[in-house]
Amino acid sequence: MNPIIRAEIITIGDEILFGQITDTNTQWIGAELTGIGIRPVRKTSVGDLQQDIIAALSEASQRVDVIIVTGGLGPTKDDITKHTFCKYFNTELKINEDALALVTDFFAKRGREMTELNKQQAALPENCTYIPNLWGTAPGMWFEKDDVIYVSLPGVPYEMKSLMTHAILPKLKERFIFNIITHKIIRTIGIGESFLAEKIADWEDALPSHIKLAYLPHFGQVKLRLTATGDNQDTLDAELKEQVDQLVPMIQEFIFGYDTDELESIIGKLLLQNDATVSTAESCTGGFVANQITNVPGSSGYYEGSIISYSNAIKMHILGVSRETLEDFGAVSEQTAREMAEGARRKLNTTYAISTTGIAGPDGGTPEKPVGTVWIACATPKETVTQLLTLRNDRKVNIELTSSYVLNLLRKTILKTEAEKINDL
Amino acid sequence: MNPIIRAEIITIGDEILFGQITDTNTQWIGAELTGIGIRPVRKTSVGDLQQDIIAALSEASQRVDVIIVTGGLGPTKDDITKHTFCKYFNTELKINEDALALVTDFFAKRGREMTELNKQQAALPENCTYIPNLWGTAPGMWFEKDDVIYVSLPGVPYEMKSLMTHAILPKLKERFIFNIITHKIIRTIGIGESFLAEKIADWEDALPSHIKLAYLPHFGQVKLRLTATGDNQDTLDAELKEQVDQLVPMIQEFIFGYDTDELESIIGKLLLQNDATVSTAESCTGGFVANQITNVPGSSGYYEGSIISYSNAIKMHILGVSRETLEDFGAVSEQTAREMAEGARRKLNTTYAISTTGIAGPDGGTPEKPVGTVWIACATPKETVTQLLTLRNDRKVNIELTSSYVLNLLRKTILKTEAEKINDL
Repeated sequence: MNPIIRAEIITIGDEILFGQITDTNTQWIGAELTGIGIRPVRKTSVGDLQQDIIAALSEASQRVDVIIVTGGLGPTKDDITKHTFCKYFNTELKINEDALALVTDFFAKRGREMTELNKQQAALPENCTYIPNLWGTAPGMWFEKDDVIYVSLPGVPYEMKSLMTHAILPKLKERFIFNIITHKIIRTIGIGESFLAEKIADWEDALPSHIKLAYLPHFGQVKLRLTATGDNQDTLDAELKEQVDQLVPMIQEFIFGYDTDELESIIGKLLLQNDATVSTAESCTGGFVANQITNVPGSSGYYEGSIISYSNAIKMHILGVSRETLEDFGAVSEQTAREMAEGARRKLNTTYAISTTGIAGPDGGTPEKPVGTVWIACATPKETVTQLLTLRNDRKVNIELTSSYVLNLLRKTILKTEAEKINDL
Repeated sequence: MNPIIRAEIITIGDEILFGQITDTNTQWIGAELTGIGIRPVRKTSVGDLQQDIIAALSEASQRVDVIIVTGGLGPTKDDITKHTFCKYFNTELKINEDALALVTDFFAKRGREMTELNKQQAALPENCTYIPNLWGTAPGMWFEKDDVIYVSLPGVPYEMKSLMTHAILPKLKERFIFNIITHKIIRTIGIGESFLAEKIADWEDALPSHIKLAYLPHFGQVKLRLTATGDNQDTLDAELKEQVDQLVPMIQEFIFGYDTDELESIIGKLLLQNDATVSTAESCTGGFVANQITNVPGSSGYYEGSIISYSNAIKMHILGVSRETLEDFGAVSEQTAREMAEGARRKLNTTYAISTTGIAGPDGGTPEKPVGTVWIACATPKETVTQLLTLRNDRKVNIELTSSYVLNLLRKTILKTEAEKINDL
């Protein structure tokens, strides 16, 4: 086997340590490095303090071959990355003419005036290789010292991703002969982590040492991730396939997809295959389900839209839920969920429709219907299927769990309906 | 001043390094520690390898007073945190009877059978103080050695948060006399980071050394965060107030809120104050705006609902956009945005309504209307205000930016409308 190329991702910024922004960059970078065969072995976040940044760089240089640094490159005074690199490499800042031309052009094109602060973004440590940023004003930088590569990127996600995709990843691929790391993910829903583990214990115990298994639970789903390491892609692929072929029959009923499949993308494929459409009627999830469905590019090919009926008036006047149903059973009831789904299907003129109505919290619970009581439904041309969920006392968790479960109800209902159609022929 | 209590947050799991799950835990922990006056100085993520975890613990123990470890406590075989703590502290696992009783009870209450794997969750390192987990099956653990506190928590966000809130934070507060760290956040929208910096440069240069400023840009917004450190809360509060009083007049028109204010919570307050309601009509944002609005607990008091019109049929039949408008100007046009907002306001019977229609990408752009072309509108009882946005080539970013801008358009329109009402009196 080739030696493993190891990487560390360092993010700079008090705002990350203090929990004032969500760091989505390091997840993306971790996945991309893994994708080309580099193994991330550590992530480190430090604040905007020169001595802390230098300590992190120095420690990382003892551990890994590639260090990716993000953040601390903006135009304002709290951004100190460049000065810190100068100190670390014992060099000076100097205006890079190519970088200056690009920044000037960036502002000219947008018809915005350029400030002195913006100009200083073209000043770079003398020992760096300049990586042009065509998507913003903070340049990328590439350093090499004592067999370690240091890459510095802006923290703005869009700029960081564009620089990585178009410049850094290709440059890294040229540079190393990689050990191959291959992943296979099996995605399940409707079974807990420990029950899954018991079902597949014998198979898991028999895995060869170069194939590792991880359980990744997330909102009612558990991803099983197999990671194989070796030097031949074909051998690894064959070995993984053999393991998956053994695994699948043990847990077939819980599997909804593989690898990058999401419930919403699987549903999209099913609907397109069957020339069918879907709409949604949401109460407690307030648009979250619609947002999940429309996150899939091309979803306009099968998704018509949604009625978000936060009030009873809209449940009645737009979705056609009857006043008697609301008065007799309440907004959070099997009957209301059913009439919402049927109303959406009729009003929005789709093959299928799903609905959610429940008490997401933190308030609004009663002894009979505590927070976390949710009814979901799926209407088809032939019937309406309903399901009661009993969730937790956390608004956001309840919304996301409800979304997972109603999408899974839709998936299973489509599969059943289409199977019956074939049987009917 | 009292000595600063320093903390490091360590997360364990290959899935975080490989970018296969989003880590939301460390952001939350960072904010909570900061909130009680502990300063997070580093975050570290390592994989499921014993030697890497031990190295991280050992390094952190040289740097900080408190180490919070999350992850690696589930019932399955890839979770090795407990064994690693045993090795690190040179001790053994032993069944803790209190923990066993709690796990047994947890399963009994849910009517689920308990597996051998679940039982092993009650086995703890002998030197730990057991922290009962009332919200799941993996116990919390508290260790002390050489003046360093080690806390180990499960990685499931709901369980981790409950344990921190109800057990760990109170225990930490009892333990230390804190230096006080106070934050004040000023939230702006509609102005870039460097322009903001130029406007307030003189004020920023004159800040005393114990008050730090950070610029935190996020989806069209820039948060200005002031951090003051000292030993007297009243003095710090007075100093921060004085600085904010100087700052605000320089950038008044861009400020929409302070501290934990979000656009959607500010809008909620404005609507409740004025006894007004709002509805939404979304095309390209596909439910994201509705989801933002309904993330606010109590939003059912002013939010009626949304029509998500992904198809032209729904724009016409439910929202009442005219066929001529769609044919003459297209779905992405000022006219359509206007008719969508007006249609939602009428159909959903609200004081205000906002709409979005655009090309979020990655496909669907044309030379006249490239990806990132978005029209937004806000309808009031007297008029309809529209705005053209020219965004970027990234679907998710475009959806989030559009949501920020349309909520800000709503905020400004409410303020203007209510001010005119008072003038009309």
